[in-house]
Amino acid sequence: MAKEFTVTPWEVKGDIDYDKLVKQFGVKLLDDNILKRLEKLTGELHYFLKRKVFFSHMYFDSILNDAETKKKFYLYTGRAPSGPVHLGHLIPWIFCKWLQDKFDAHLLFQIPDEEKFLFKENLTLEDTKKWAYENILDIIAVGFDSKKTKIFLDTEYAGHMYKYACMMAKKTTFSTVKALFGFTDSNNLGEIFYTTMQSVPAFLPTIMEGKPTQCLIPCAIDQNPHFNLSRDVAPKIGFPKPTTILCRFLPSLAEGGKMSASIESTSIFTHDTPEQVRNKILKYAFSGGRDTVEEHREKGGVPEIDVSYQYLTYYLADDKKLKQIYEDYKSGKMLTGELKGIAIEVINRFLKNHQAKREKAKDQIEKFMLRD
Amino acid sequence: MAKEFTVTPWEVKGDIDYDKLVKQFGVKLLDDNILKRLEKLTGELHYFLKRKVFFSHMYFDSILNDAETKKKFYLYTGRAPSGPVHLGHLIPWIFCKWLQDKFDAHLLFQIPDEEKFLFKENLTLEDTKKWAYENILDIIAVGFDSKKTKIFLDTEYAGHMYKYACMMAKKTTFSTVKALFGFTDSNNLGEIFYTTMQSVPAFLPTIMEGKPTQCLIPCAIDQNPHFNLSRDVAPKIGFPKPTTILCRFLPSLAEGGKMSASIESTSIFTHDTPEQVRNKILKYAFSGGRDTVEEHREKGGVPEIDVSYQYLTYYLADDKKLKQIYEDYKSGKMLTGELKGIAIEVINRFLKNHQAKREKAKDQIEKFMLRD
Repeated sequence: MAKEFTVTPWEVKGDIDYDKLVKQFGVKLLDDNILKRLEKLTGELHYFLKRKVFFSHMYFDSILNDAETKKKFYLYTGRAPSGPVHLGHLIPWIFCKWLQDKFDAHLLFQIPDEEKFLFKENLTLEDTKKWAYENILDIIAVGFDSKKTKIFLDTEYAGHMYKYACMMAKKTTFSTVKALFGFTDSNNLGEIFYTTMQSVPAFLPTIMEGKPTQCLIPCAIDQNPHFNLSRDVAPKIGFPKPTTILCRFLPSLAEGGKMSASIESTSIFTHDTPEQVRNKILKYAFSGGRDTVEEHREKGGVPEIDVSYQYLTYYLADDKKLKQIYEDYKSGKMLTGELKGIAIEVINRFLKNHQAKREKAKDQIEKFMLRD
Repeated sequence: MAKEFTVTPWEVKGDIDYDKLVKQFGVKLLDDNILKRLEKLTGELHYFLKRKVFFSHMYFDSILNDAETKKKFYLYTGRAPSGPVHLGHLIPWIFCKWLQDKFDAHLLFQIPDEEKFLFKENLTLEDTKKWAYENILDIIAVGFDSKKTKIFLDTEYAGHMYKYACMMAKKTTFSTVKALFGFTDSNNLGEIFYTTMQSVPAFLPTIMEGKPTQCLIPCAIDQNPHFNLSRDVAPKIGFPKPTTILCRFLPSLAEGGKMSASIESTSIFTHDTPEQVRNKILKYAFSGGRDTVEEHREKGGVPEIDVSYQYLTYYLADDKKLKQIYEDYKSGKMLTGELKGIAIEVINRFLKNHQAKREKAKDQIEKFMLRD
């Protein structure tokens, strides 16, 4: 039986039943028909799609309609800065880059530096701004096209956003956000208003192009309630309805729950050293192995619950290799120690490359920033 | 017995009992002690003070403390654009100009072009922006010093405001604004957030000067609840508490209530022609005269309820002349027709001058606007 779980844009806890969540959020699974249409356009499917890391959506088919008729659409994703970037944060960004490359699409990258400030008691705007610039290095390191990617901080770009936030705000009552986000009278005015600021970038493509232009938002599923609201309001204020394509959460190293920057020991950060990654995985990565080597050889491991294996589904692109690992672990041929060794190697290889690109990103920030 | 009345920043109705309102809003009357301190600094008192047009305040004494020790303070007032400017709107602006001249003070003039858009169903942002520029001509026509006066629209200047609005918003719950403004769950998110944007200009002096700098807000008393809230929050976010100096409302031409741009026939607009002013006053100005000339000559008129006389208290600076008119009308020597004639002449003289300056203002807008 599934345990209780909670998923809101500001809280994810418990053992998430994604089937239930899909129904609860009123989104759809990415079915074979949609994936075939996408593959026809892109020539191949990203392994995130084949492995159902990106697994659900809200009207992604209307983006395919535009793509099939060569109509321009924008991508939009974001990062609320309140700490260092971990491996989970990167998933939608990596997928965004793939979409950008395949569709030659513009990407708007929102840094809502006010969001966590408003929702976390002890965080200052100086803190979030500091993290914003740290996080932007990770974003640039993903490899976006600087000519087609614009990054902006809400507190800096508000002069171009507040007007549209007000348009959305006029059409949204407190009752609505109470029901949608579970707010109460004790929520602060910034928390209450914030959802409108997160919607605005979905309207910017139309403003920037000067004609109705669709927007696809690749993000983790917890963010969908914002865009569900944007969809309701968009036609009332003259914008196309935004669409989403949604991913699961990268699990925490420990059993259950998603990776969370606030629990350092069970998260792998982009700044971690190879030694730190090694230690964390050896020490904390929840294992699907058996109690003894004998039992493991006999019954085999359970890759479905093994966190190291899960990480490989996110970070090992090679389908064949992954299949082999799955089979070897499942059959008992591969022990947990070996599996952890592979995960450590794959992640450290990824991070070495990422960290080098992150270092280079320090000179590229201004090319990406949307200042005015 | 006083009738029921309502005064909020968005609704003023009924027969206002200012003594009750002062208690309800927790503000103080401008007493002789304060007025004497002010007169010592300025050399004279503006007739608005002598006649109790400006009659109450919130910590105006702390501004006097600064003025007495030659410390710099700023003025801040505003205009929510949703229609043409009438004679009532000008009162705080005229007083601001006097304060600016006397104290050589910087003035921040906020044009919250989102406010009425958020609070009025049928108003668009295009409407409010159009009115913003119309109204700015009236503001400039009042004669402010362009070197010391900065005018800004919220939707244009939000890039410099939103951050501070969030700081205030974080410290203000929905419960608080429910109690303060009578909001319910049916209010929209923009209405709920708006008060933070109206507070921000009170913090800007400190930001602009780079050190704690007090702000005095001359405005009509209905706006005080916003600044009461700003005072509560300011020290929590590191700003000096704003102070206010508050005026009564210019009455409507009809009996009871304040002049309101939404009732055209009983308001005098700055664009009215001499003929329109004449017709409106003759037709609508509520009279304190008696039913017949004989009765009037015998018992005398009642200047206290006569709207033409009230307008003279706002627009006829000459104390001696006003006193003579009061006595002549009260004694029955002056008839209502004569009193109306004087009011028409005084107002038309004022408007002729204002309209000429308003015409010249068309070339001066950019000197006043705070764009970035």
